[in-house]
Amino acid sequence: MFNVPSALKRLVIGKAMRSEELGETLLPKRLALPIFASDPLSSVAYATEEILLVLTVGGTAFLYLTPWVALGVVALMAVVVLSYRQVVHAYPGGGGSYEVVTRNLGAKAGLVVAASLMVDYVMTVAVSVASGVDNIISAFPGLGDYRVVMACSFVALLAAMNLRGVRESGKAFAAPTYMFIFGILLMVATGFIKMAFGHAPVAESAKYAIIPTDHNGTLAGVALIMLGLKAFASGCTALTGVEAISNGVPAFRAPKSKNAATTMSWMGITAVVMFIGITVLALVAKVHKTNDTCQLVGFQGDCHTASQPTVIAQLASSIFGGDHSPLFYFIQAATALVLILAANTAFNGFPLLGSILAQHRYLPRQFHTRGDRLAFSNGIIALAVVNILLLWFYKANVDNLIHLYILGVFTSFTLSQIGMVRHWNEVLSTETDPKVRAGAQRSRVINAFGACTTGLVFVIVMATKFMEGAWLAVLAAIVLFVMMRGIRKHYDSVADELTVDDPQADSVRPSKVHGIVLVSKLHKPTLRALGYAEAFRPDTLEAVTVSVEKEDTEELKEQWQEFDVRVPLKVLDSPYREITKPVVAYVRSVRRTSPRDAVAVFIPEYVVGHWWEHFLHNQSALWLKSRLLFTPGVMVISVPWQLSSAPKADHPARRGPGAVRRGEPLNNKNGKRRQPIEAPEHA
Amino acid sequence: MFNVPSALKRLVIGKAMRSEELGETLLPKRLALPIFASDPLSSVAYATEEILLVLTVGGTAFLYLTPWVALGVVALMAVVVLSYRQVVHAYPGGGGSYEVVTRNLGAKAGLVVAASLMVDYVMTVAVSVASGVDNIISAFPGLGDYRVVMACSFVALLAAMNLRGVRESGKAFAAPTYMFIFGILLMVATGFIKMAFGHAPVAESAKYAIIPTDHNGTLAGVALIMLGLKAFASGCTALTGVEAISNGVPAFRAPKSKNAATTMSWMGITAVVMFIGITVLALVAKVHKTNDTCQLVGFQGDCHTASQPTVIAQLASSIFGGDHSPLFYFIQAATALVLILAANTAFNGFPLLGSILAQHRYLPRQFHTRGDRLAFSNGIIALAVVNILLLWFYKANVDNLIHLYILGVFTSFTLSQIGMVRHWNEVLSTETDPKVRAGAQRSRVINAFGACTTGLVFVIVMATKFMEGAWLAVLAAIVLFVMMRGIRKHYDSVADELTVDDPQADSVRPSKVHGIVLVSKLHKPTLRALGYAEAFRPDTLEAVTVSVEKEDTEELKEQWQEFDVRVPLKVLDSPYREITKPVVAYVRSVRRTSPRDAVAVFIPEYVVGHWWEHFLHNQSALWLKSRLLFTPGVMVISVPWQLSSAPKADHPARRGPGAVRRGEPLNNKNGKRRQPIEAPEHA
Repeated sequence: MFNVPSALKRLVIGKAMRSEELGETLLPKRLALPIFASDPLSSVAYATEEILLVLTVGGTAFLYLTPWVALGVVALMAVVVLSYRQVVHAYPGGGGSYEVVTRNLGAKAGLVVAASLMVDYVMTVAVSVASGVDNIISAFPGLGDYRVVMACSFVALLAAMNLRGVRESGKAFAAPTYMFIFGILLMVATGFIKMAFGHAPVAESAKYAIIPTDHNGTLAGVALIMLGLKAFASGCTALTGVEAISNGVPAFRAPKSKNAATTMSWMGITAVVMFIGITVLALVAKVHKTNDTCQLVGFQGDCHTASQPTVIAQLASSIFGGDHSPLFYFIQAATALVLILAANTAFNGFPLLGSILAQHRYLPRQFHTRGDRLAFSNGIIALAVVNILLLWFYKANVDNLIHLYILGVFTSFTLSQIGMVRHWNEVLSTETDPKVRAGAQRSRVINAFGACTTGLVFVIVMATKFMEGAWLAVLAAIVLFVMMRGIRKHYDSVADELTVDDPQADSVRPSKVHGIVLVSKLHKPTLRALGYAEAFRPDTLEAVTVSVEKEDTEELKEQWQEFDVRVPLKVLDSPYREITKPVVAYVRSVRRTSPRDAVAVFIPEYVVGHWWEHFLHNQSALWLKSRLLFTPGVMVISVPWQLSSAPKADHPARRGPGAVRRGEPLNNKNGKRRQPIEAPEHA
Repeated sequence: MFNVPSALKRLVIGKAMRSEELGETLLPKRLALPIFASDPLSSVAYATEEILLVLTVGGTAFLYLTPWVALGVVALMAVVVLSYRQVVHAYPGGGGSYEVVTRNLGAKAGLVVAASLMVDYVMTVAVSVASGVDNIISAFPGLGDYRVVMACSFVALLAAMNLRGVRESGKAFAAPTYMFIFGILLMVATGFIKMAFGHAPVAESAKYAIIPTDHNGTLAGVALIMLGLKAFASGCTALTGVEAISNGVPAFRAPKSKNAATTMSWMGITAVVMFIGITVLALVAKVHKTNDTCQLVGFQGDCHTASQPTVIAQLASSIFGGDHSPLFYFIQAATALVLILAANTAFNGFPLLGSILAQHRYLPRQFHTRGDRLAFSNGIIALAVVNILLLWFYKANVDNLIHLYILGVFTSFTLSQIGMVRHWNEVLSTETDPKVRAGAQRSRVINAFGACTTGLVFVIVMATKFMEGAWLAVLAAIVLFVMMRGIRKHYDSVADELTVDDPQADSVRPSKVHGIVLVSKLHKPTLRALGYAEAFRPDTLEAVTVSVEKEDTEELKEQWQEFDVRVPLKVLDSPYREITKPVVAYVRSVRRTSPRDAVAVFIPEYVVGHWWEHFLHNQSALWLKSRLLFTPGVMVISVPWQLSSAPKADHPARRGPGAVRRGEPLNNKNGKRRQPIEAPEHA
């Protein structure tokens, strides 16, 4: 039989993989770079733009601050990359900031980092996808109306690719990242060569003057510094995702730490070169971009609805000769692709973090379960769902989303660097080998410097971004933190309750078993249930029926005599036409008279095969079963009767014609999961 | 403990009633009239209007046809009322057209009638509520924007009132119906007296000329007749709901048939008087109303958005001295109320018909279950849901909805009259008492005439309304018909399959019982399950675990030895990390080796009390249970372990402080239904 949902699942995510295949999904460096570093690499596509957007608040007056701000970002990038190289070496088991902070600063601090990182992974997807869509729209303005739909579709696509497993997503994502690096470097080189020959590029937007929204260009002292810091905070988006490599160390090929550290250096150098190149060219070409298009003097078209091309698009257009040159389209395509795939960093990191948190019982254990393709499916799906909601709510607008971003990054940066300092302190307190000691001391200096720097940046980001939207990210992190603590508390208390204190005392056998068979009609399922109940030879056995309509009960009694049933029948009255309450009350009364015995309630059920048949049978027995489970000392025994429509789902003899010929295995190994319907027979 | 959903339910529908209280809800005639006849009575509020709307297609040229069309409607009303008086006498058990047709013309024809009636009940609610809202808006034009919200709220309100039970809705609905009858008769009398004194009323819209949409007023021969017939078909809306009384005979006080017939005659006479009065006055006062407001020459305001007052509103305004006289508001209030309550006719009839159909196994049996207040709750809820969707989709516009209406009415009218002719034929074939024979012969003549007349009207309605929307009603009736046949077929085949052929052969006891205890961890619930399984003394007993992660399995084995568990432990491998398939395969292999035995699968479960705890535990055991139910020869035995959070829902000892003081009964009789969560312990 052909099963549509199952076939669709196989088509999207591929065939199920055995647990032993897990080892095969390790990554070489040339694949690890695009997978784990596409986020920091791609963020150079919007980092310059975010700096410019802040500085144009005073018209073009403060654009002179740009190089200084950019230098600050580059310096910070160097510090962070150096710091994280130490982390990767010290913790080859992965877990990144969460693991480092938990080990060195305790579970509470670790959980703060975990909550921050989760928020940040979500934002990485949202910002990257939104920015990627922005670049597509810069190349094809006609697509402007489909912004949200495109963004959500890309998220769904990424989720599907990741559900297929790590290795395959690596292959699919390697090419665009390298295309992007090549394209941007080509563009930067071309731009610089043109400049050298006196043909400096001029952006399309260079001709617009900008109406200052504030300050009229006359800003000095503290206010000027605050503006610069705000621009710097925006530029720090370039640093997001460095974390991902240290989280993903276990996915590298051996030697894992060394390969991860090398990949991180490559990533840092490449990102810095591209970022500097783009920023210089943007200043030279006089790219003018504003939050509000109506600030542009001389802009043609309706400034309330038209969107401005991205900085990358403006540069590519001016350097490669206009909006229709092949290289312009190449740059836009590569940028859009790498941005959308940068979201993949989060699709790798989030489920991994989720599985570690689930293992530590901070998240539901479903996040630790590997799916058919060995990926942590539930984490992937959760990330996709949250992001689709977020993109839909924020209309996939980068400027709205960006304010929620990077606060989490710097929380985890700072705490993990502090943790690393503690780590080296511990190493130095026991280590005697002078060579190792020298290395540890050097690392400690790097991490201490990193902690100070990133801590400072955290304060800057908090001060400049909180009111503009970051409060929501803070709130989300707090909610996650509280929720994870609650989950852990729940799991701990359940585990405490269930732990066996004394094997003898906890495994007391009930002295007697009282059997009760629930009956509504005397048909085959009932007879089977009676037969099975008798086969168990309980100490007492009786049949019980609830009298809702008198005629039915009388008919049942007559049949009982006619069929000469050995088991005695007891009738319970139900003036309010309920079935559950009288049965539960009766079962409880049996228990009360003999508290050391167990009561076994046999429920005849018939099982149907089609989902719609579900609606044709009452749910009383299902409800009854769940109520009985609340009653101490009770066993609930379902005695199923398979209707002819039911066994098709499972029974080999009843499969459709030609099923064997089509090569379907007899014991249903092909992973089909037909929804079974359990239709109780209580009317 | 205070339970919010349960308290809300009590507030809306009142305290639960005992089955014995059913007898008390019988209706005296003065309450039966408003309950069962508010539909045909209230439809005079729009019947005249619908005739006028059709005839204004040629400007004012064809309005001279109005009296003839109205006379046709009156004559038809007389025929139908007379015919149905025969039905009520012949079938005091109720069931109306469905019962009559099923008995006399067979199940298939009966089902056609049932499907038509169901569609018609739905349309009665939709049209009546929409028209009622229209009259409210005529009085308060400012409410025009809230048309759909108001309509849907009224449907919800009606549903709530009906869920409280028949008797109470009778009381609530009697006053408005009598107010409406009194108001309309007062208005008609005042209008005629004014005319007699030479002060004939003049409608506000009399001053507008009408632009003909078609024919330019030059229509003759067949086309003219078609126009007249179309107007007649629209006017026939006045006849809807006569059915309801014959359906509702069992709800009358004894002598049921006589009281029902008398009520029907009262209803017919009242309706005819009101309808004639309104129609004459509308012609005298020159009420001009059109489908498209832009056809009115001289209309002030935006003709695309403004709505015209209803005919009733225009008459009331012209007779009682303007839009602000108290009597105008009284007429509008009474009309709106009676129209909205007319929908109540359907809220009485539909659930009753549904329960009969469910009893005949054409609908899911849930429609035959009486709720806490002895009303057929599921039918009421279904009707409300469908209507809210319909009103929302059609924007609560009467003119759009009206075309779907009355086709069903005349289907059932015609078939039931034909059925009645057969009925009298049968009576006459056996009856010998000459007095009874004379009565039967007279009834046969009346019903035969009724059948011809209503059959003719059915053809007219079909011919003039099909393309304008009635096709959808036809389609809905066909879908219902097919669905009900399918449901009956399913129930029949299940019943066939379950019927005991030979009590001895069908109640064979399995020769042996093999016990299997599923284990994932060795904690208290597992020990309890092992203890219970041993207490049953099955012929063989083993514990089975599925090895998903090797370390966990090793740990389990060690604990097994450490605790010195008597039951042997079997480990099943699961390379694809699944739990269900290996277990089902193993159970099946046990069955295969000894097909005459039964397999008892014990599943230790822990039960939690809060809905959110559900998400923190895997669903594997639930899934496994439902798969095992598909396997022949298997019993599934849940051995629950109540976590400390769980028993609060049920256990008297654990209730909140002060519960007893507040008078809550100890054994949870106050109808609270806390959602129980069944959290399986399989990880």
